[in-house]
Amino acid sequence: MEKIELANQEALRRMLTADPVLIDVLPAGEVLTGLEERMILHAGPPIEWDRMCGPMRGAIAGIAVFEGWARDLEDGERLAAAGELMFHPNHDFGAVGPMTGMTTLRQPVMVVENRTTGNRSYCTINEGLGKVMRFGGNDEEVLDRLRWLRDVLGPAMGAALRQSDGIALKVLTARGLTMGDEMHQRNVACSGLLLRALAPELARVATDTAALAESLAFIAGNDQFYLNVAMAMGKAIMDPVRDIEGSTIVTAMSRNGTDFGIRVSGTGDRWFTAPVEMPEGLYFPGYGAEDANPDMGDSTIVETIGLGGFAMAAAPAVAGFVGAGNASEAALFTRDMGEITVGENPEWTIPSLDYQGVPAGIDVRLVVESGIAPTINTGIAHKEPGRGQVGAGVVKAPLACFDAALVGIAERLGVA
Amino acid sequence: MEKIELANQEALRRMLTADPVLIDVLPAGEVLTGLEERMILHAGPPIEWDRMCGPMRGAIAGIAVFEGWARDLEDGERLAAAGELMFHPNHDFGAVGPMTGMTTLRQPVMVVENRTTGNRSYCTINEGLGKVMRFGGNDEEVLDRLRWLRDVLGPAMGAALRQSDGIALKVLTARGLTMGDEMHQRNVACSGLLLRALAPELARVATDTAALAESLAFIAGNDQFYLNVAMAMGKAIMDPVRDIEGSTIVTAMSRNGTDFGIRVSGTGDRWFTAPVEMPEGLYFPGYGAEDANPDMGDSTIVETIGLGGFAMAAAPAVAGFVGAGNASEAALFTRDMGEITVGENPEWTIPSLDYQGVPAGIDVRLVVESGIAPTINTGIAHKEPGRGQVGAGVVKAPLACFDAALVGIAERLGVA
Repeated sequence: MEKIELANQEALRRMLTADPVLIDVLPAGEVLTGLEERMILHAGPPIEWDRMCGPMRGAIAGIAVFEGWARDLEDGERLAAAGELMFHPNHDFGAVGPMTGMTTLRQPVMVVENRTTGNRSYCTINEGLGKVMRFGGNDEEVLDRLRWLRDVLGPAMGAALRQSDGIALKVLTARGLTMGDEMHQRNVACSGLLLRALAPELARVATDTAALAESLAFIAGNDQFYLNVAMAMGKAIMDPVRDIEGSTIVTAMSRNGTDFGIRVSGTGDRWFTAPVEMPEGLYFPGYGAEDANPDMGDSTIVETIGLGGFAMAAAPAVAGFVGAGNASEAALFTRDMGEITVGENPEWTIPSLDYQGVPAGIDVRLVVESGIAPTINTGIAHKEPGRGQVGAGVVKAPLACFDAALVGIAERLGVA
Repeated sequence: MEKIELANQEALRRMLTADPVLIDVLPAGEVLTGLEERMILHAGPPIEWDRMCGPMRGAIAGIAVFEGWARDLEDGERLAAAGELMFHPNHDFGAVGPMTGMTTLRQPVMVVENRTTGNRSYCTINEGLGKVMRFGGNDEEVLDRLRWLRDVLGPAMGAALRQSDGIALKVLTARGLTMGDEMHQRNVACSGLLLRALAPELARVATDTAALAESLAFIAGNDQFYLNVAMAMGKAIMDPVRDIEGSTIVTAMSRNGTDFGIRVSGTGDRWFTAPVEMPEGLYFPGYGAEDANPDMGDSTIVETIGLGGFAMAAAPAVAGFVGAGNASEAALFTRDMGEITVGENPEWTIPSLDYQGVPAGIDVRLVVESGIAPTINTGIAHKEPGRGQVGAGVVKAPLACFDAALVGIAERLGVA
């Protein structure tokens, strides 16, 4: 047992000493090793077409059109069903993606470097709210936005970041926590702080002020812009925590809309999966639980580093948005997550808890012993392809993943 | 007494129905009626040169050089002492200014219109932190910054705002309250939200991207940028509350570094003054209470509308910055201010108090009866001319002002 404690302390040390910096935006094909034509990276653990949920299928068909592999959405579905597209998890390529999490060759991805360890992680640019591809949207409006990100905003952000020193995300995130963000369902403060850092750099490299105004307005108009940055940051922080022999710390939690999967440090890249659960939450006018797709996305990497549902106390405003009770109840979520984590992050503190650090380092043993599942703040997609977001809520990670992981660790340590 | 209650309800109604919008930036000389050459508007109630404190004198000498009335700082002091400069309160010209509060012909002022009532208020652009004129700074670095505001940022903001619909401040401020701002000593959220609104408009009218990058970087680099906007907003909200016969609601609190003055609705533009108090707070490294100038500035207009010290519960991070205790103690300040106000503002709510509105409408009767003085969050200037900011703290409005105002009201109503 002492071996596990030491391994987990090392895991926590690596988490807390990470130094994630947003340094570039480049086409995925230029930076993701092994990414090929007709290959689609998706959120969550591995899954094939026949088991994919509606919004994931909708996104697959849409991105196939965007990439020029399919003539239209029907053709995209046909290619997928015929096995002519390859599907892999983002996590196997150093990437993460929110909700459906489509990552393909020609999409621009943000590059976050962990300057402590030198590893890099990647995430596409957040598309905004409503009918967007991450929620299964796939019509021309959705594809046109992806083309604009590819042709205008992505190159502009890349040029701006390359001539800057990069944007240090640890301090920016710390500041956002003091401004009511939890970085999963509320990112308005960090999105504003990021724009403050980016805007002068974007202006410095701009040649077309109309395009610049468009880029600034796009970022300024999206309160969730920072989500994808926080996700790439999470991946950059957690990747070096992998493969510590004996460690029971969770290095990734992720869902593909069908399965929920976790990875644990001591068992490397093995996925422990269980069926995803349904979020409980609030729906946009005209929608209800009957429209909702089950839990989906790589965005739970944010909870894996102690933010999102784990930092609910920092964001009383989000508690109402996700239907998690009033402001004074938000603190209870953070307290509960303290029961299943091995430490606190002294650099990410919550003012309303008198600067207590966010709970960091999910220990599968503590989850199994306590029966307390990680709480996740999440968006909710319509269950049919092409529809988009219908609400936001709270969902639990399935305990079965943690049970299976504990068995896996025990086998690995030869104690099962 | 019923007459007073009705008058105060009308005062509160006018406060709560105000609709302040940032619409323009123009040279003060173009918009402040009656502003002339060699006329200097200052913070607080009226004061002449011989009673002015050190930083106010420093600012006077500096602005005389900026305006071209004096050859150098010594010449500026000589002109002032010789009676060759005219001094008037900002408040008498529809304006407000932080700390020393210098407003003169060639400085750009932000224009806030109260769209409910049509009145306009004005405030200069915040210069940033450290050695700046509002804290008594007056060297070439300070004057060069004022020249850049006059020649670059002011005209750019004006052009950007004029081709926009303006920036609605009530909603923006409400959002800032959910992000940890109290709008006096903490404005980081609102400054970011304002930049989000302004940046695309600035880009739209830009002709020189280097100047645009400079402007964006200046706003982005100043966490207190919104303070002066909040002040003009406060003035625009409170001016229509003046002159309600019988009302005991405070319409302005202000200090010139020597005297603290308040105005009350039922007694119009009459000042009730008392000596200013010393802030209690925290000092920057190398400075202490022995360096501090007493309380100064028109910025207390922010407390007059229920923000600043009144909204301390919204900003646990500021409680530490101003030396007002830990986060959980911040709520006590807001609770106390509820004892001396006639209502709450349902549109400006505090998440951590389960969305209670900020205390609004200071009633001089309640202040006198309870002995609870309005709490003000404030910056602290060095007491010598030319030095700048040395700290931040909390200060009380002197009760003697409220005692005098109550007598004034009673006389006016013929009951004294």
